[in-house]
Amino acid sequence: MKKPLILVTNDDGVAAPGIRALVEAAKAIGDVVVVAPDSPQSGQGHAITISDPLRLHQVDLFEGVDIAYECSGTPVDCVKLAKHVVLKGREVDLCVSGINHGSNASINIIYSGTMSAAMEASLEGIDSIGFSLLDYSWDADFQAAREYARQIMEYVLEHGLPQGCQLLNVNFPNLPLPEIRGIRLCRQADARWRENFVEATDPRGQKYYWLTGEFINEDQAEDTDIWALQNGYVSIVPSGHDLTHYAALPHLKALETSAITEKS
Amino acid sequence: MKKPLILVTNDDGVAAPGIRALVEAAKAIGDVVVVAPDSPQSGQGHAITISDPLRLHQVDLFEGVDIAYECSGTPVDCVKLAKHVVLKGREVDLCVSGINHGSNASINIIYSGTMSAAMEASLEGIDSIGFSLLDYSWDADFQAAREYARQIMEYVLEHGLPQGCQLLNVNFPNLPLPEIRGIRLCRQADARWRENFVEATDPRGQKYYWLTGEFINEDQAEDTDIWALQNGYVSIVPSGHDLTHYAALPHLKALETSAITEKS
Repeated sequence: MKKPLILVTNDDGVAAPGIRALVEAAKAIGDVVVVAPDSPQSGQGHAITISDPLRLHQVDLFEGVDIAYECSGTPVDCVKLAKHVVLKGREVDLCVSGINHGSNASINIIYSGTMSAAMEASLEGIDSIGFSLLDYSWDADFQAAREYARQIMEYVLEHGLPQGCQLLNVNFPNLPLPEIRGIRLCRQADARWRENFVEATDPRGQKYYWLTGEFINEDQAEDTDIWALQNGYVSIVPSGHDLTHYAALPHLKALETSAITEKS
Repeated sequence: MKKPLILVTNDDGVAAPGIRALVEAAKAIGDVVVVAPDSPQSGQGHAITISDPLRLHQVDLFEGVDIAYECSGTPVDCVKLAKHVVLKGREVDLCVSGINHGSNASINIIYSGTMSAAMEASLEGIDSIGFSLLDYSWDADFQAAREYARQIMEYVLEHGLPQGCQLLNVNFPNLPLPEIRGIRLCRQADARWRENFVEATDPRGQKYYWLTGEFINEDQAEDTDIWALQNGYVSIVPSGHDLTHYAALPHLKALETSAITEKS
């Protein structure tokens, strides 16, 4: 049987440990192509580069992966270049993005370069999954995330995603594998950032502002991704061009059972 | 009666003719505050600046507007800085973004800095409208757009937007006022970009790629924004964190009639 072609990207940059974990998971089930940013692109949202040229350089960072490039652009640029330049329109079976160092639950889907890369692929008609781990540190432990990522990719490759919902937002709690209670299909919590700006003066005497903020969730319902993560579950929010796609939730319900039982 | 406070931003930069047209329309109905990028930011999507400091400089470009700043960041940064630094949390009644030089209909809402600025305001609980004119040229004629923008702002200030749908995507056909047939409430057309990359070599002998593309709409239904614009209507797509918010369409249906009858 022909192996599926899996495109891997991220927003933390091609050198991040998170993308290596995702490549490892993807290699177990398909042929892998990597096109990822040459520098960190967190918070880039769905930015594209229209007024500047883009660069691609081959990299030799992933064992057993012949086609791997770093790109000077945003995560969304990477997906476009992968499809139209690197793969010259060859059909991609699945696009996966991440594993992000840090949460993309709730409204972070809107700011996230990781999720925007996945959304771009879904706009191109490719089933896509963004993966994020609730640990911002560079030396985060991706072992449990990698296991779950593989299972979720296998499910999507086997069953496909419903029409109009070619995008999943997957977040992993920062727990070792035995402590993860399974997968929950969720809606995105109605949370938000309470922004703040640090105001300071630069060495030239000019005032500047630096964004900071605190994530606020007042949505206490038990069907949200935030609840699932706080309670030890992997959260999956089906999305699409209309972000949370409520109608698709029941169609994907089987994911919860399939992955929990296959885990041990 | 206290005049409403209207925050105006855009993604073409503070010097663009489109934002001047929008400020003129807003001044007729409220107190106006402007915080807009100091350079063009098209295609920035929902990008935010997290790894660099941001700058704000007062500008004197808008007659009768006392509070106007240019900002070194993205459109989303502008909204955050406006709310938390310039206005120090003072309540904003309406945020408007644009008038963009060029269409943001259909899936362009996802790439658009204009729409992302409006979405950011809606995430902060502020009723928001993004306006775009189907003319990319710098010397576009904004007269008809300005008239319609004023009417739509007045409607939203009077009636508010439905819960969960604090964002409108408004596009104007490139027609003189007498030829515009009115307003249509729409869903976003299921269209997409067919990307292409121009490949070339720079003066240093290095290869580069430059994004280009063609907008493809195979969605022929008559309830889409693309259909409305092609048929001489102003299109309004109600949106939110879940982009097209179908349930809200009937609640806003009155906009069509109110604006058509008030126009002449």
